[in-house]
Amino acid sequence: MARASKREEIAQAALEQFRTRGFNATGISDITSAAGAPKGSFYNHFASKEASALEALDRYGAELRFDMLDTPGRPALERLRAHFEFLGEDTVDNGFARGCLVGNFAAEVADHSDEIRSAIQGGFRQWTSYIQEVLTEAKEAGELDASLDVETTSLFILSAWEGTLIAARANKSSAPFDAFFRTVFDVVLR
Amino acid sequence: MARASKREEIAQAALEQFRTRGFNATGISDITSAAGAPKGSFYNHFASKEASALEALDRYGAELRFDMLDTPGRPALERLRAHFEFLGEDTVDNGFARGCLVGNFAAEVADHSDEIRSAIQGGFRQWTSYIQEVLTEAKEAGELDASLDVETTSLFILSAWEGTLIAARANKSSAPFDAFFRTVFDVVLR
Repeated sequence: MARASKREEIAQAALEQFRTRGFNATGISDITSAAGAPKGSFYNHFASKEASALEALDRYGAELRFDMLDTPGRPALERLRAHFEFLGEDTVDNGFARGCLVGNFAAEVADHSDEIRSAIQGGFRQWTSYIQEVLTEAKEAGELDASLDVETTSLFILSAWEGTLIAARANKSSAPFDAFFRTVFDVVLR
Repeated sequence: MARASKREEIAQAALEQFRTRGFNATGISDITSAAGAPKGSFYNHFASKEASALEALDRYGAELRFDMLDTPGRPALERLRAHFEFLGEDTVDNGFARGCLVGNFAAEVADHSDEIRSAIQGGFRQWTSYIQEVLTEAKEAGELDASLDVETTSLFILSAWEGTLIAARANKSSAPFDAFFRTVFDVVLR
């Protein structure tokens, strides 16, 4: 029987290593060791570390449970809050470490790789549009002030979230999360 | 005459390299080349790359012109807006690159170096307290709603600013800055 390809293990190990170490501190051998694969096998599946980072961004996006945002049966703003609570749990559960892979790559790699920057930009754009749909729905349901600019507010909320993760990791504290939920939901989205 | 020490050039080159490349992508030789110093001379002045990163954070903090926040003669919220406008110019002038060294180190290094994380935490704490002083002053002057929680709001504004820089770099666009100024000054601080 032919040996199963290690592609899946390598791709998943790359995601974990990038989330834990960042892009530049991750070596190919960190990825293959974590995958239990010989170092040379990496290049059977990925042309470069950058290529595996692009796939890691896709895989990370698939974990963000955007489906939670359009599940009917709950008020729109409750769903938005549950979305960010869900995302925050990962950082809390990891001892206030790791944060968001998209934001981390934006801070570390966006200035140096057009391909990765473009993937981050696409990810942020998609994410912002999901938030915008929820806010539009909330506005139509009368949950939000009719004068709220949903496009600007969606972009702002995503930026604020990315900075909140950074502050929570720096402080090793949930105070930045509390400040995010109180200000976004009690002040901005009132 | 003895040759002048290259310490100042090396320390300043380290700041520039860390701002441009990030922590892990900066090699000692990048720093010494930029400083016009022999590679070995780095260790005459710094025990490690981490030690030079700690000094870079201090030097970066001194560039943030916190004095602009307590210059009398302008309303408090106008000073706060001018502070963030000043900080944003650096990223715009650098083609939407570089961002904030404190936030970048938080994203890239905080999980892996207690010393650097602690310096970042101290920097964020100091910065938050400056913002809090301005908001307290604005509240006392009747520029702000008396019910505003200045402690929570200061922490939130700093987080939102850090995330705004990340989004502006990812998008290579000033739209995240516009969303920050409109939401913070027209919605949160109304």
